[in-house]
Amino acid sequence: MANEKESSRGLQGLIARFLSKIWRFLERAWNLGVSEPKKFIHCLKVGLALSFVSLFYYMRPLYDGVGRNAMCAIMTVVVVFEYTVGATLYKCINRATATFLAGSLGVGVHWVAAQSGEKFEPIILGSFVFLLASAATFSRFIPTIKARFDYGAMIFILTFSLVSLSGYRVDELLTMAQNRVSTILLGTSICILISVLLCPVWAGNELRLLVNSNSEKLADSLEGCVAEFFSNGIGNTSNEDSSKKLQAYKCVLNSKGTAESLANFARWEPAHGSFNFRHPWKQYLKIGAAMRNCGFCIESLSSSINSEVQVPKSLNKNLGDICMRLSSHCSQVLKELAATMKTMRKYSTTDVLVGEMNFAVQELQNALKSLPNQQLQIGATGEQTTTEFIVPLIDILPLATAIFLLIEIAARIKGIVDAVDELADLAEFKPEIDEQSKQSQSTSDKTDDVTMKALQKV
Amino acid sequence: MANEKESSRGLQGLIARFLSKIWRFLERAWNLGVSEPKKFIHCLKVGLALSFVSLFYYMRPLYDGVGRNAMCAIMTVVVVFEYTVGATLYKCINRATATFLAGSLGVGVHWVAAQSGEKFEPIILGSFVFLLASAATFSRFIPTIKARFDYGAMIFILTFSLVSLSGYRVDELLTMAQNRVSTILLGTSICILISVLLCPVWAGNELRLLVNSNSEKLADSLEGCVAEFFSNGIGNTSNEDSSKKLQAYKCVLNSKGTAESLANFARWEPAHGSFNFRHPWKQYLKIGAAMRNCGFCIESLSSSINSEVQVPKSLNKNLGDICMRLSSHCSQVLKELAATMKTMRKYSTTDVLVGEMNFAVQELQNALKSLPNQQLQIGATGEQTTTEFIVPLIDILPLATAIFLLIEIAARIKGIVDAVDELADLAEFKPEIDEQSKQSQSTSDKTDDVTMKALQKV
Repeated sequence: MANEKESSRGLQGLIARFLSKIWRFLERAWNLGVSEPKKFIHCLKVGLALSFVSLFYYMRPLYDGVGRNAMCAIMTVVVVFEYTVGATLYKCINRATATFLAGSLGVGVHWVAAQSGEKFEPIILGSFVFLLASAATFSRFIPTIKARFDYGAMIFILTFSLVSLSGYRVDELLTMAQNRVSTILLGTSICILISVLLCPVWAGNELRLLVNSNSEKLADSLEGCVAEFFSNGIGNTSNEDSSKKLQAYKCVLNSKGTAESLANFARWEPAHGSFNFRHPWKQYLKIGAAMRNCGFCIESLSSSINSEVQVPKSLNKNLGDICMRLSSHCSQVLKELAATMKTMRKYSTTDVLVGEMNFAVQELQNALKSLPNQQLQIGATGEQTTTEFIVPLIDILPLATAIFLLIEIAARIKGIVDAVDELADLAEFKPEIDEQSKQSQSTSDKTDDVTMKALQKV
Repeated sequence: MANEKESSRGLQGLIARFLSKIWRFLERAWNLGVSEPKKFIHCLKVGLALSFVSLFYYMRPLYDGVGRNAMCAIMTVVVVFEYTVGATLYKCINRATATFLAGSLGVGVHWVAAQSGEKFEPIILGSFVFLLASAATFSRFIPTIKARFDYGAMIFILTFSLVSLSGYRVDELLTMAQNRVSTILLGTSICILISVLLCPVWAGNELRLLVNSNSEKLADSLEGCVAEFFSNGIGNTSNEDSSKKLQAYKCVLNSKGTAESLANFARWEPAHGSFNFRHPWKQYLKIGAAMRNCGFCIESLSSSINSEVQVPKSLNKNLGDICMRLSSHCSQVLKELAATMKTMRKYSTTDVLVGEMNFAVQELQNALKSLPNQQLQIGATGEQTTTEFIVPLIDILPLATAIFLLIEIAARIKGIVDAVDELADLAEFKPEIDEQSKQSQSTSDKTDDVTMKALQKV
């Protein structure tokens, strides 16, 4: 009795654990759906496309025959429907073209093999399949082909093998081919229509959003890092939200793969919104590379925050303000770039902001040049004091590193600005007018003030 | 006449350009094949598998009937055969399991729909397809599912839709299912056999090689960077080969995606060579992350090389030797880790090397602490000279940054060492004995010498 009870309890525990595991999984899935509704909508779109194509065939008398054409259309929808419009188009076009090419070639080879007699037929067919399959597989390793025609190469191998080995007569093959082409066209057009008309997710737009958000993340991280560095010891302002901002740059470091695949898909998309057909997608990759470059420096900068060495307070105080000003100018430039990417407009303020940033760098360099002499004058009351006051190199390592990296980051931000400028030229971004120009006016007024003040200080 | 000639020349030029383009493409492909013979062999394997399965069906009388089973087997081979054994197994297992699950479910739904009358049948079928396809598509967005069952989810949708909508009677379906299972088994087993028996490319091994080569690249870049930094101005030793080494760390920065996919595939591989079935593949990702961390610092370090600021020669001379020694110790540790990964043996020398590296860091820190006073004593002949001799902060920025980053790199290398140690524990690496131990003995003797010398200096 006791044993039975125990084992039933053990079973209950097992089931409870299993259920709680499933529950947690569902919860996670639900959170994903809530946080990214676009993905949730995509799933409904796939379901819709599939029920649509299957009911289409289900209703038709054609279906009673073989049911095979329906199969082919369903298969096309399942395999071809992707998250972004670009990816769907890429697969549709690749599938259709590869099927057509491989089908024609397959019929040809089939005919040649049939002519050469029963003995040689399998040998000819086998060697053709071997050669073409190997060559097509090899082409998938070549980067340029892989980026654009990877799926097409696979479909080519598939179709060619199927057609050349099918064992039907050539006239039968032609009817089959006709059926197959019509089903593929049906499947792909349903996919394209649904993916373009119902809440489309454009790869190009996703790419733009990625670059835009990366720029904002860099700005947040940079400002947070520098603030953290110079407030260190005086007052620790870090909380969960700010530490999240500090870590934001990490997403930027690993964005290469996503950006590249989005750019590849964006190439297949037709003109939409503010994007032309020949929008310079490659330029986004250049911008992304420049941003990652900047992110690497921020990563190293963040390590100087965690250094245990105590920077002399006098130095920290002297340089802290200038560094914080520089970092805030840097992050302003980054935010302006983010806005440029978001609105696809040239801002007249960008040059001003870059000028301010360069000026802040100059200011910092001037401060550094004059620093040791000043300090000596402050601290000097006798020969001994002078030598005592001199800071050992080890104590200023983190500060020097932070300053060096900050100057380097400013230089790399200039690289991002250049890349974005190039994009603006290539994609013919229109200049921003209206309200923005008023704002820019006031900003530039403010800038002049800042510049004047800074000049007076120097 | 002249026009004709011209146009024929234009045509000739066009053809010549086209041919030269093709020629260059072929040349590139050939170079790829020569540099990575494994990929070339993979292509032959695909061709072989395909001709094998097709000839198998070609020979059999079965083929005269529908030819459909052959299709299915060919399709399986084309879709499932991947570069690494792990990827092939992943696809095979996913395909077989998903087909079985979705097939059973499809038959069930089909039966339910058939029972409910002709009117409700399409509605029930349509809604089931819609629901399950949406749910399965959604599951593909969940990272853990995507990593392991992405392909399976797609095949599930495909098979379920095909079976539930096929319009055959249930008993017909069962015969079909039997055929299909046998063809899939045939296709997958041919793929698995060929990919395992003929020059197998194990994902696990590729992952190990990747981590191993990354470690070596970091070592090369680090040593090269520091040497370049301190030889700067004295004698420029840079040539094409060394600049290639300097840039090697860049591969490390972008290796995350490759490493993750290899680790995912490696999980499916059976025990082979020195790898168990439950080899801790995730640990390789941790090692990779630690290496990337180290690579970020090297990236920033390399930017300090290109700085235009001239570091004072006296400082450079004083610290240069110590820094070069530290960097050489760091790269020795990295090379030792590379060897550990390569041979899958624990080296007794690793601890010694890490100790040496730590000692070099200590030495550098001591030198830094004592530096300004020493310099002052050297340079001091009067009060004025003292103040003149002091180097403005801006001139030592690159040097301070390089030193700070070097110390940080040493700390991060410690992180890699810890991760590799953990791997050695998890995977139960055996200690290295034989020849290696003799070598290690001599190394440790040498180490003692170095340590003694260094201690004497301090």
